[in-house]
Amino acid sequence: MNAPESYTQILSKAVEALSDTSEMKGLFHQHRHGDPLPSGPVLEEIIGLCRAVLFPGYYGKSALNSVTVKYHIGMELERLFSLLTSQIEAGLCFSREAEIGHCGDCHEYASSLSALLISRLADVRRILATDVEAAYLGDPAAQSYGEVISCYPAIRALTCYRVAHELNRLGVPLIPRIITEMAHSETGIDIHPAAEIGHHFTIDHGTGIVIGATCIIGNNVKLYQGVTLGAKSFPLDANGNPIKNNPRHPIICDNVIIYSNATILGRVTIGRDAVIGANVWLTRDVGPGERVTKD
Amino acid sequence: MNAPESYTQILSKAVEALSDTSEMKGLFHQHRHGDPLPSGPVLEEIIGLCRAVLFPGYYGKSALNSVTVKYHIGMELERLFSLLTSQIEAGLCFSREAEIGHCGDCHEYASSLSALLISRLADVRRILATDVEAAYLGDPAAQSYGEVISCYPAIRALTCYRVAHELNRLGVPLIPRIITEMAHSETGIDIHPAAEIGHHFTIDHGTGIVIGATCIIGNNVKLYQGVTLGAKSFPLDANGNPIKNNPRHPIICDNVIIYSNATILGRVTIGRDAVIGANVWLTRDVGPGERVTKD
Amino acid sequence: MNAPESYTQILSKAVEALSDTSEMKGLFHQHRHGDPLPSGPVLEEIIGLCRAVLFPGYYGKSALNSVTVKYHIGMELERLFSLLTSQIEAGLCFSREAEIGHCGDCHEYASSLSALLISRLADVRRILATDVEAAYLGDPAAQSYGEVISCYPAIRALTCYRVAHELNRLGVPLIPRIITEMAHSETGIDIHPAAEIGHHFTIDHGTGIVIGATCIIGNNVKLYQGVTLGAKSFPLDANGNPIKNNPRHPIICDNVIIYSNATILGRVTIGRDAVIGANVWLTRDVGPGERVTKD
Amino acid sequence: MNAPESYTQILSKAVEALSDTSEMKGLFHQHRHGDPLPSGPVLEEIIGLCRAVLFPGYYGKSALNSVTVKYHIGMELERLFSLLTSQIEAGLCFSREAEIGHCGDCHEYASSLSALLISRLADVRRILATDVEAAYLGDPAAQSYGEVISCYPAIRALTCYRVAHELNRLGVPLIPRIITEMAHSETGIDIHPAAEIGHHFTIDHGTGIVIGATCIIGNNVKLYQGVTLGAKSFPLDANGNPIKNNPRHPIICDNVIIYSNATILGRVTIGRDAVIGANVWLTRDVGPGERVTKD
Amino acid sequence: MNAPESYTQILSKAVEALSDTSEMKGLFHQHRHGDPLPSGPVLEEIIGLCRAVLFPGYYGKSALNSVTVKYHIGMELERLFSLLTSQIEAGLCFSREAEIGHCGDCHEYASSLSALLISRLADVRRILATDVEAAYLGDPAAQSYGEVISCYPAIRALTCYRVAHELNRLGVPLIPRIITEMAHSETGIDIHPAAEIGHHFTIDHGTGIVIGATCIIGNNVKLYQGVTLGAKSFPLDANGNPIKNNPRHPIICDNVIIYSNATILGRVTIGRDAVIGANVWLTRDVGPGERVTKD
Amino acid sequence: MNAPESYTQILSKAVEALSDTSEMKGLFHQHRHGDPLPSGPVLEEIIGLCRAVLFPGYYGKSALNSVTVKYHIGMELERLFSLLTSQIEAGLCFSREAEIGHCGDCHEYASSLSALLISRLADVRRILATDVEAAYLGDPAAQSYGEVISCYPAIRALTCYRVAHELNRLGVPLIPRIITEMAHSETGIDIHPAAEIGHHFTIDHGTGIVIGATCIIGNNVKLYQGVTLGAKSFPLDANGNPIKNNPRHPIICDNVIIYSNATILGRVTIGRDAVIGANVWLTRDVGPGERVTKD
Repeated sequence: MNAPESYTQILSKAVEALSDTSEMKGLFHQHRHGDPLPSGPVLEEIIGLCRAVLFPGYYGKSALNSVTVKYHIGMELERLFSLLTSQIEAGLCFSREAEIGHCGDCHEYASSLSALLISRLADVRRILATDVEAAYLGDPAAQSYGEVISCYPAIRALTCYRVAHELNRLGVPLIPRIITEMAHSETGIDIHPAAEIGHHFTIDHGTGIVIGATCIIGNNVKLYQGVTLGAKSFPLDANGNPIKNNPRHPIICDNVIIYSNATILGRVTIGRDAVIGANVWLTRDVGPGERVTKD
Repeated sequence: MNAPESYTQILSKAVEALSDTSEMKGLFHQHRHGDPLPSGPVLEEIIGLCRAVLFPGYYGKSALNSVTVKYHIGMELERLFSLLTSQIEAGLCFSREAEIGHCGDCHEYASSLSALLISRLADVRRILATDVEAAYLGDPAAQSYGEVISCYPAIRALTCYRVAHELNRLGVPLIPRIITEMAHSETGIDIHPAAEIGHHFTIDHGTGIVIGATCIIGNNVKLYQGVTLGAKSFPLDANGNPIKNNPRHPIICDNVIIYSNATILGRVTIGRDAVIGANVWLTRDVGPGERVTKD
Repeated sequence: MNAPESYTQILSKAVEALSDTSEMKGLFHQHRHGDPLPSGPVLEEIIGLCRAVLFPGYYGKSALNSVTVKYHIGMELERLFSLLTSQIEAGLCFSREAEIGHCGDCHEYASSLSALLISRLADVRRILATDVEAAYLGDPAAQSYGEVISCYPAIRALTCYRVAHELNRLGVPLIPRIITEMAHSETGIDIHPAAEIGHHFTIDHGTGIVIGATCIIGNNVKLYQGVTLGAKSFPLDANGNPIKNNPRHPIICDNVIIYSNATILGRVTIGRDAVIGANVWLTRDVGPGERVTKD
Repeated sequence: MNAPESYTQILSKAVEALSDTSEMKGLFHQHRHGDPLPSGPVLEEIIGLCRAVLFPGYYGKSALNSVTVKYHIGMELERLFSLLTSQIEAGLCFSREAEIGHCGDCHEYASSLSALLISRLADVRRILATDVEAAYLGDPAAQSYGEVISCYPAIRALTCYRVAHELNRLGVPLIPRIITEMAHSETGIDIHPAAEIGHHFTIDHGTGIVIGATCIIGNNVKLYQGVTLGAKSFPLDANGNPIKNNPRHPIICDNVIIYSNATILGRVTIGRDAVIGANVWLTRDVGPGERVTKD
Repeated sequence: MNAPESYTQILSKAVEALSDTSEMKGLFHQHRHGDPLPSGPVLEEIIGLCRAVLFPGYYGKSALNSVTVKYHIGMELERLFSLLTSQIEAGLCFSREAEIGHCGDCHEYASSLSALLISRLADVRRILATDVEAAYLGDPAAQSYGEVISCYPAIRALTCYRVAHELNRLGVPLIPRIITEMAHSETGIDIHPAAEIGHHFTIDHGTGIVIGATCIIGNNVKLYQGVTLGAKSFPLDANGNPIKNNPRHPIICDNVIIYSNATILGRVTIGRDAVIGANVWLTRDVGPGERVTKD
Repeated sequence: MNAPESYTQILSKAVEALSDTSEMKGLFHQHRHGDPLPSGPVLEEIIGLCRAVLFPGYYGKSALNSVTVKYHIGMELERLFSLLTSQIEAGLCFSREAEIGHCGDCHEYASSLSALLISRLADVRRILATDVEAAYLGDPAAQSYGEVISCYPAIRALTCYRVAHELNRLGVPLIPRIITEMAHSETGIDIHPAAEIGHHFTIDHGTGIVIGATCIIGNNVKLYQGVTLGAKSFPLDANGNPIKNNPRHPIICDNVIIYSNATILGRVTIGRDAVIGANVWLTRDVGPGERVTKD
């Protein structure tokens, strides 16, 4: 290397250019010292702890029995409470700083939301049990409940969604969305945490599924891979920006089946017991029991 | 925090609620003490070891030559034998406990299956070499065999599938499916381990591909992203549950090409040299050499 | 275990079979001793460092302010320079050994390419800022720039693409493609590093998107999930192999919107302000402002 | 590098030379496949778990209270049982293979010894509590029980010794000695696990202390750094080898104080309430209440 | 295993016995929820950061130059500030809870102490530089300053002592003592953080050295291995407990040399330029320039 | 925190003060970019690899047999060669930069020294085998060769010393000393790598032993804990600095036994078969067969 200084010079010029805070508006996130930051690895651990608590004996290193299950769940909930508090606090700070420039004392409030989430996990387990049952009954290739819990991407995505949905109902900003995007990355299933989904929900294969923020899905609904439940278009405000939060995604009633790669767009209603065929493209209401196929 | 006890109370109430084994039927997996458990991280390492053994010099930290390759492969196979034995045993216990409430001594049987798998790896490498060749020849963007092996998702997914398929043929429960679901998560390509696939098989891009459990695919077949080879419907038994294991997915003969997002459903046969166009939706047999396109 | 030797015998036979270098042509990668190897974990760290430098304060463990940002970016660039040099060198060796059987001294050349990449990162940040802005304005569900940067798969994929594209422009072999395939695995969005993409580019949801190597995409373009910008067919050379590197993917002009699962194949041009509907299949030019929908 | 092959040749010659099992008698430890091996990192974790269980709240990452302490101790004992079983089994196999060439089924026996050790931990805690009290009362520099537990090397060494001593009483080979040598390495205090030591035992500073295998130490004894309680000489058998296991180290009665660097050798008795001065060298009995100083 | 339940029963009985908080007085440390705990691994990292900042270029993974040194030290001090704040807070809580049952808000106070320590590091480096110089000049085997900094146990122990001494002067409880005990474990050199030690202090070899809490050591003093500067006896209070904090260890004046295994006990003064021989045992004052040897 | 800026100000002032290179003469180690640095963790791994190769089956995770031992040793030597080359190169650069301001190309030279060390390991194993034998025969508490290899600090220290001594003979600077200081820290046994030591060397307990750089020790010598073989004084040069490298430590002839805490200083000779008693202080020659005891 005949001019090692030159690399040092390039490096220090790049440091100056990339540290210029005046240019970084919106991209530079300036946290208050001491506030927790949203953290991918911590959220991974949170999801892992939820899975361990919700499906005892499937995750983790050792055998459980009816005595030791209590020690495991005790430890897992204790750690979950602590990690979740930090991430909820991170979400609150993140959001308030964006809005009002400071956060106040979010820690106590985050602790109480974290405790509320934990007190709802038994209900989350009850509804996930119906999803497991539906996946097992609906797939001829499924050999056991254990196989469904261990390796079906639908169950992984729905575990994330159902936990994130509870956090969203508690008003936690940012964190629910990061959780469902983690499931999206892992499974190719993209469910917005604000969507409402009933019991016995099944997804087959799953890659490419999109379920938008204002979707409402009933009970016993089944989706195949590649289904989009999206928005058709959205009204703009006076500045030409989309109006946030208005209902713009489909309502899917009980017992509907939607086959692979079907696309349903806009605030339409698919009635009870309807069947939508593969590759169908739909922007209208469908009546109860109706079957819609390509041509 | 003015009432720290309350968090402790919430925590212990949640522990009680979530440890109630009477409510957990089917969700609580109670392993016999000492039996190994299926483990994501162990299976990740198993796949990594298979890749290192099958494609020497592409994975791992150091340079190989014709002397040192033997040390590497020796160590990798030794560790693979040990880890695979534990995971096969985990699969056997898991399945037998579900069926007959106990496992017996699966360890010796798992060791012999693990050794059988290892003795078949040279054949697995031979057929994967044809897949690499097909991917290289079929993609104008491919610069070298090395690029194909290093970064094509098809090769990652097929390596998992071809190993999992051998395990499935040996009658190992659960584990083959977990392995192909790991590849599904990594690549968006979902191949059931029970499917039969010939040599020189190519997948381009791959995201969203589904190949069902009873598919039979010949030699020199090429699929593009988003192709579904699925079931159309399945007969129910007297209780209204789907009948397991009957042939319900397509047969794809030699030299067929299927373009992106095509959907083929049911036990239909696509004849030799046929070409199926993008976005086509098919539930019928296609003759040899036939070209099917949208409209 | 009554015959432990037998496992040892199976193991040593498999080691012999799998170490037979005569059989491994093309699959056995023989690196010169001391040359660096392409490494997944190192490339993961490289991407992480790029994200940390490009979006200060969103990644990493601690709070930044206008004083400390310089220490962070200094350390990150120093490490990035070192890791990137090793990976560029690995790519150069890999490619030259394939071509001419040896590499020469790639280290110095790799260092200079690595320094060039670092000196372009400020420009990469400027164009990524336009992508963030476009994603925020285009999605009614987006709450803040921070949410977009933290969890939108489009931003993760575009960060990888824009860095890989710079490396590709510098003539670095192999490494750019591995980087975009890492993003493909993480997000389901498959962008070839050789594609050209303008500013304010948006992708919604993203799973299943394919953008081919010779695509040219203008400014303010928006794609939805499942869109393919692919090749229709490609001319073969005298040996029946595809001719590498000829233009075979679409040109998308400014302000075009392409809805979910649309497939556009071949060297066609989609004119300014055109709108392509969901599930559309297109192999022809589209005029400026034209709206193409199914049926 | 002008002759890279030569390194490969040196390497393979060294591999041959170092793999020559005929030369390795006594140095090459050939374990039966599947038997556990003694493992430094596992034993480190075992000691860590013992510390966590014996001194709740001082080790580990999170706060304990009277509810959560049960979850922690439950998890820790479960893991301790599993790890300790494997290490006891390793010790048994190691010893029996040395003696009779095979081990038989040690696993069940190891489990029962592991359970016995766990059932004695409450007693171990009771006697360690007296050691903590003695250290606190005996050191004017000690600020609190907490300081003594957190950082006094005597407590670290005695925790290892008292656990190893229980294992030694249960007849576990090898493992107790490895544990006390780990404490020796950490603290410079070398206590043989076969030594007998009463309650309220104190060691000040500790570096260089040696307590031999057949020592018997009463209650309320205090030692300073550098004290040796060793053997003077030992009878040889017909082959000139030392006779193993005969009493050859001192007996120290209740309330004795021995100051720094004193050396006491052979099966002598130091009577109740005696005081031995710094740097004294002793090979004779000392009467009750006697004070021995240098000249 | 013919009675697996019995292990579960033994386990749960042991959990009950070991969780009985009534028995744990003094041994059970009950921290307030959310307060940080003293942590060995965090303190290890703190010491590592101090070494990296005090001796730039000797620790850590990459090369430094006069530009990049600032980035390194910036990052290291930022992390040091954060970790040290948490450990100082842990020490404060630990101590106050022992005294008054609660801690109040220690975080802000801990931050200010942490910042004070950081502002004193440049002075700590200046005095350590004199210790390095003294070690180099005093040892014929030393080849370079670099060798002294890289591997002399004296420098490792003095770095810990000099940092711990500053923390002790700031009134931080517990943490300084844990730091010097970490050095004691690593080097066999036991220096109490409250001792006062001048510049150009040298220790040769070091194992077994003890320097008590109320020692005062001048400049240019040299100690060899095994030297004890201890207390002879200490007055008891009315309850028979030792009175804490009274002066009870030697005063060593400038330029004194003390050879190996010498023992000096009590509040005696060793005058300027005195030399104390190996294995000497001393409990009296020594005049300036006096030479004391064994007989 | 009412003034967070102040911490930032303190931090940046400390960064400036501590980055001032003019003040750092001798303390700031400025490595050439790209040169390897001496690394504690890498040297730990090197020692671990040496132990694994020299005592097959005692270290590492899996069982060995006469077939697999070759794979293990092959892999271990390959990695040892690579790591050792980097550390030898680091030592060469370190030393040459100190002397002549630059290093030249040390890599090739380091590779050849690393290969030489590896080719001597079989001899190192042969002499270590005599040390194991001597320790076993000399200690009535030793139960087996395996126990001696697994946990005797003497064997750990001698393994480091004998490897470091070979490196020292090859002229490698700095690294041998770091290795023996690692053993010193672990065992309290401080052997300078330049000392000469014969076969069947035993150390009992070991804490506090010092063996100086110019010591010469014959065969069948045994030392107990706390023995110093040191320098008495050393001649100064014209500047008052000690003259480096002159013989200044004892010569110990064959079959000598030296009991605990004995101190032997200066270039004296202890004749064959002599016995030196505990706590003896010696600065004179001792004749063959002589017994020296206190008083």
